[in-house]
Amino acid sequence: MSQEYQKTNNTDFSVIGKSAQMIDGTAKVMGTAIYADDIKLPGMLYGKILRSPHAHARIVRIDTSRAMALLGVKAIITGKDTPVKYGILPIGQDETALAVDKVIYVGQEIAAVAAITEEIAEQALDLIDVEYELLPAYLNADAAMAATDIFIHNDRPKNIEKEYHHNFGDIEKGFAQSDLVLEDKFSFPRITHAAMEPHSAVANYDASGKLTVWTSTQTPHYVHRGLAKALQMHPSKVRVIKPFVGGGFGGKSETFSCDVCSSLLSKLTGKPVKITFTREEVFYAHRGRPDQSVHIKLGMRKDGKITSVYVKTIQDGGAFCSYGVVTILYSGALIAALYDIDNIKFDGYRVVTNKPACGPMRGHGTVNVRYSFEVMLDRLAIGLGLDPAEVRLKNMLKPNTRTVNDLRVTSYGYKECVEKATEHSGWAEKRDKLPFGRGIGIGGSHYVSGAANSIVRGRMPHSNVSIKIDIDGGVSVFTGTAEIGQGTETVQAQIVAEELGLPLERIRVIAADSDITPVDLGSYSSRVTFMAGNAALFAARDVKNQLLRHAAEVLGESPEHLICKNERIYVEYDRERSITFREALISALEHSGTVIGKGAYTPPSESQGGRFKGAGVGPGVAYSYSASVADVSVNPETGQVRVNKIWVAHDCGRALNPLAVEGQVEGSVWMGLGQALQEEQIFTPEGLTLNPSLLEYKSPGAIESPDIETIIVESIDPEGPFGAKEAGEGSLAGVIPAIANAVYDAVGVWITSLPITPEKILKELNKQKAEQKKK
Amino acid sequence: MSQEYQKTNNTDFSVIGKSAQMIDGTAKVMGTAIYADDIKLPGMLYGKILRSPHAHARIVRIDTSRAMALLGVKAIITGKDTPVKYGILPIGQDETALAVDKVIYVGQEIAAVAAITEEIAEQALDLIDVEYELLPAYLNADAAMAATDIFIHNDRPKNIEKEYHHNFGDIEKGFAQSDLVLEDKFSFPRITHAAMEPHSAVANYDASGKLTVWTSTQTPHYVHRGLAKALQMHPSKVRVIKPFVGGGFGGKSETFSCDVCSSLLSKLTGKPVKITFTREEVFYAHRGRPDQSVHIKLGMRKDGKITSVYVKTIQDGGAFCSYGVVTILYSGALIAALYDIDNIKFDGYRVVTNKPACGPMRGHGTVNVRYSFEVMLDRLAIGLGLDPAEVRLKNMLKPNTRTVNDLRVTSYGYKECVEKATEHSGWAEKRDKLPFGRGIGIGGSHYVSGAANSIVRGRMPHSNVSIKIDIDGGVSVFTGTAEIGQGTETVQAQIVAEELGLPLERIRVIAADSDITPVDLGSYSSRVTFMAGNAALFAARDVKNQLLRHAAEVLGESPEHLICKNERIYVEYDRERSITFREALISALEHSGTVIGKGAYTPPSESQGGRFKGAGVGPGVAYSYSASVADVSVNPETGQVRVNKIWVAHDCGRALNPLAVEGQVEGSVWMGLGQALQEEQIFTPEGLTLNPSLLEYKSPGAIESPDIETIIVESIDPEGPFGAKEAGEGSLAGVIPAIANAVYDAVGVWITSLPITPEKILKELNKQKAEQKKK
Repeated sequence: MSQEYQKTNNTDFSVIGKSAQMIDGTAKVMGTAIYADDIKLPGMLYGKILRSPHAHARIVRIDTSRAMALLGVKAIITGKDTPVKYGILPIGQDETALAVDKVIYVGQEIAAVAAITEEIAEQALDLIDVEYELLPAYLNADAAMAATDIFIHNDRPKNIEKEYHHNFGDIEKGFAQSDLVLEDKFSFPRITHAAMEPHSAVANYDASGKLTVWTSTQTPHYVHRGLAKALQMHPSKVRVIKPFVGGGFGGKSETFSCDVCSSLLSKLTGKPVKITFTREEVFYAHRGRPDQSVHIKLGMRKDGKITSVYVKTIQDGGAFCSYGVVTILYSGALIAALYDIDNIKFDGYRVVTNKPACGPMRGHGTVNVRYSFEVMLDRLAIGLGLDPAEVRLKNMLKPNTRTVNDLRVTSYGYKECVEKATEHSGWAEKRDKLPFGRGIGIGGSHYVSGAANSIVRGRMPHSNVSIKIDIDGGVSVFTGTAEIGQGTETVQAQIVAEELGLPLERIRVIAADSDITPVDLGSYSSRVTFMAGNAALFAARDVKNQLLRHAAEVLGESPEHLICKNERIYVEYDRERSITFREALISALEHSGTVIGKGAYTPPSESQGGRFKGAGVGPGVAYSYSASVADVSVNPETGQVRVNKIWVAHDCGRALNPLAVEGQVEGSVWMGLGQALQEEQIFTPEGLTLNPSLLEYKSPGAIESPDIETIIVESIDPEGPFGAKEAGEGSLAGVIPAIANAVYDAVGVWITSLPITPEKILKELNKQKAEQKKK
Repeated sequence: MSQEYQKTNNTDFSVIGKSAQMIDGTAKVMGTAIYADDIKLPGMLYGKILRSPHAHARIVRIDTSRAMALLGVKAIITGKDTPVKYGILPIGQDETALAVDKVIYVGQEIAAVAAITEEIAEQALDLIDVEYELLPAYLNADAAMAATDIFIHNDRPKNIEKEYHHNFGDIEKGFAQSDLVLEDKFSFPRITHAAMEPHSAVANYDASGKLTVWTSTQTPHYVHRGLAKALQMHPSKVRVIKPFVGGGFGGKSETFSCDVCSSLLSKLTGKPVKITFTREEVFYAHRGRPDQSVHIKLGMRKDGKITSVYVKTIQDGGAFCSYGVVTILYSGALIAALYDIDNIKFDGYRVVTNKPACGPMRGHGTVNVRYSFEVMLDRLAIGLGLDPAEVRLKNMLKPNTRTVNDLRVTSYGYKECVEKATEHSGWAEKRDKLPFGRGIGIGGSHYVSGAANSIVRGRMPHSNVSIKIDIDGGVSVFTGTAEIGQGTETVQAQIVAEELGLPLERIRVIAADSDITPVDLGSYSSRVTFMAGNAALFAARDVKNQLLRHAAEVLGESPEHLICKNERIYVEYDRERSITFREALISALEHSGTVIGKGAYTPPSESQGGRFKGAGVGPGVAYSYSASVADVSVNPETGQVRVNKIWVAHDCGRALNPLAVEGQVEGSVWMGLGQALQEEQIFTPEGLTLNPSLLEYKSPGAIESPDIETIIVESIDPEGPFGAKEAGEGSLAGVIPAIANAVYDAVGVWITSLPITPEKILKELNKQKAEQKKK
């Protein structure tokens, strides 16, 4: 496969780099967008799921006879109907759509009912009789790891899903060379994505044996695989269609019980079946960020150079593997890709507990360790009398290097990010100079532009895009990517428009229908602009080359001297000679019919290697960088934190759509804000989620939003399409420590457990007062 | 473009030649198929159309104010909103969706209303005030041609749409060499398609300026062009989607007012708008077979050789051109392609009248002339004391010849058709030997496998097909063809399955969405199996060649020695060496991503030429042949005809799906039966259709159905995909004269005007009796 990366320095762009309204925005704004739950098929039934009230229990008996007798109930399935295990990772095939033999968390699926109305289905749930035999429930990592006989999964002794132990350089030597070494323990609560749209699936298993599922997902291809496995169907008989999706943030990156149960119920009844989760059920589906402890030890020389870092972290991953093995891997492996550190040791434990399964959430794996690191960095800097921003600049990696653990860093704009963020925020004038109760803090972060290794086996391309152009002159871009609000369709349209020299409105994106669109691994790990963008670019080049051959004939010129621009094809060195795009198109159509091209992108093998390849996933194919500065006010009487403004300088390679980059950065800021100050899932001692609603879970709304200033830094990645890389997640992880460090700057206390609540601040302030009194 | 025709004599087929259930049949049978009228979009409005009560009148004034004031009415459009003329033929751009300035037939569209319910829209029609000034109405061809000052279209003097005059050989010399010359005048009523599903369109003009139209059509591509023109939009902003279609038979081969009006109303209201014609409106849309007179003179030598034929025909084509120019062309040009005749003269007139427009109907152009010819042939044979079947065999063309008017005949199975039909029907034992009141008759016919020239200008391929194969192993065939019940999707799937050596169930056909599927000219003139079939075959070869390259590498063999069969790729001369299709697929996917191929078909230029190229359309790229034998009983007391059995031997090249060929032949028999015995559109002297309902129009139902025996004759066309050609229309034209000739055999009277009603038979029997008495 031809993978000629964009090496040109040509920046005479017509579409790229210009802010474009989302091409799917109108339908969303006008209310005509069709989401999964909007779909109504003739004869459709409604499905509801009965869920476990116990965190850990054997199912002794399920009796569905009373429920089946209810008028309007068409089918009921239980664990015996869903025996086949599936899961997102090859090594994590541990889920069934309905619990088989035992339940392992409160909220786990036990039975599913299809009925002619939602109300009847709901009513039927109450008529299903289940007898349980309780088992000891492990509701945190410590309890789970202490188990001696009864385990949650029989093949996970000590309830440990995965351990990772890395050791690069010599940390003891590093600590010995340090002028200051600090260590501390940080703790993080379980938080969730809180996407506006709940999970929803409509399945239609038709009489010919073909299953079509419309589902709200970030990963249509993985759902396709998951359904084929769970239902034991030939994958070509399964069609997965992604309608409009109302947000994902990582929480819709797998096959969910609504997909499998609606499909099975449709097969049983011969009718389409819809299952839409309630908000409470979304909390049970979860797949959010795990409860996590981080023990970190960091050493620094008095010139600010980081000498050594040791991290031990334990993640309470909940009941299933999900992406957990990747979460714990990212927590360790990616420590090395932000700063230049010679000595890194990491001990990571992913633990199975009797709570809803955790999974990937925006900033996947990196956020909590990054918080711990960035806060410790400030503490060391302050301890050594250094400026925290200066300290960060002291520890820069270089572009085009390999990190100590063999990660391949190509473009690297972090230095410029720190410089720009401090400059724009007036850092030098404010840091340590603001009055008590007002502070400024900085945090750095980074993220992958997609995983270099795919979850699936084999060297299958990660992204495929095809293009068709017919006599109407419209360019149809077929992509399996999942637009989840982040702008993937717009950015692919921009790339194709730029390459073909056409206005954006001439491009239409056909997305995410497994029968129609080529495979793309999906919208996760910020891979889409980079990978599908490259595939779209290669597909556009393929059709362009076909058209240029015809244009070359007409113009009596060699194709390599031709360029596409302004709906014409020009001789590059003699712009007087040109033909219209349409003339070339018609010539191509007459010669060989509909113009069709394709492009595929597989990360280069040199990015797939490295010493962290394990588990079928790998480190990033490129890294983006971000520096956040927060200006906060802390009321020392109440402990209340108000974030006044956040500056984020983000290195996204090249901003293909600056408006979209700003949108992504702002979204990351809001999500970081929530984790920093408010969000936390709370459980009863029995494992019941206490706050499974948006009212109680308290994500920040418009009222809490600070002023946000986004500064785009463009490092022009050599392999990204037109130099682009990640923009959707990286900023998040820097925002949270920036706030924490600003809180310290304001009132002089360090908060080591999130969220930074007024109670915790007051407690630390009181401790501070008590100590001051002692002196 | 590579157009390697299937020249192999290999008949070791796995899928081809085997009867396959329609791949879209289950959805139809189970009631889950979604037709245009089944579509409901959020906020959708309903459109209704006000129609003219006059056959010819100036519109003095339209006042929509009372209608607009009705609660629930959202928009009303009139002719001033639809100024742009469109039409199917480049020379027939004479229609507007709503009448501008004057109306030219009863039922013509005057205004369209969009309202929140159908009932309100209907009610609003009554509130639109229109003032007319009556003009002279021309309700038949003679009246229209006699007009002197006021014409229906200003640019059609004498109301003549088109004249064709052909003269090949020397007919007078031919008649002079004849032993018997007979001439007579035949007349034919206007008949219509009576497809089960009425025309229906749902239009959604969204706020981004993109128009999507779901419409019941045989020609999505022509509707796409028609809408773009009528609405003056860039064609890339128009998306035409063909959902399931409930029959067409030629009647849905153009842009209709429901398409244009729903689109305009959607644009005005910002809401989706649906317009579904009532059955009465379908009769106004019409586009059926014209009222026609045929004056025919035929000469024969006493050995049965046809010496000369002269045909003068006048078609009352109704208010618009539609395909009328083609209808009159086909009536003349195709006379030459069934029998070997040296001298042919033709005078044809297509006339504009103040009735709903005629258009293409199954057997387009050929049926009425063929009836006249085949009946005259019998009369000559009987006059010369010859067997009508023997006479037909005396006048055979040869395969691979050019006719007197330069039509290119390739494969020619008519001789075998006549032999088989007479053999199976026991012709020799029955003809002239059955008791009075029972008779047997024969009729021959032929039809094109699509027009060799397209309606659109330029040498654009007539059919394009693309294929994608991904890791799921399903083969998606993208085609712009319109499945209208005839089995085009199934046959394309079979062709691809055969070529790739896969079972049929592995193939899925994605059809008719202008954004998604490559252009195909549509389902008309029996072109799809031949042209789209070839495009599908070439697309399959394209992907096969890609897969074979990878298989060749693995097998250490050259690709041309490999064959695809039974989901494996074998070395042809050493079947022990093979790999699975899947292995080759995975290798191809890993190498270059999603496997994508394409094929295009343009009829060869030698079939496009000839002396009948005119009007942008041309003669067939191949011809199929049919001989029908009818066994009838005629009650001499009542004149009632009962058709006991019909045998049809049809030369379809190769029967790719014998079950579908039988279905098409049976459908042709039923349709022929209707025209032969029952169907007729009746008008009042003012031009109002008197019987615009299925109850009154009286198409034959199950009760009238005779026993039908289909005999498939396979002449293996050198250019058809796997040797296939037409199967959907050709038989029809032979069935009608076979019945007429059988009626003569039964009771000794010739009926020269259709339908053959009891009244006409009794009248002829009475005349016969009177003459016998005279003797």
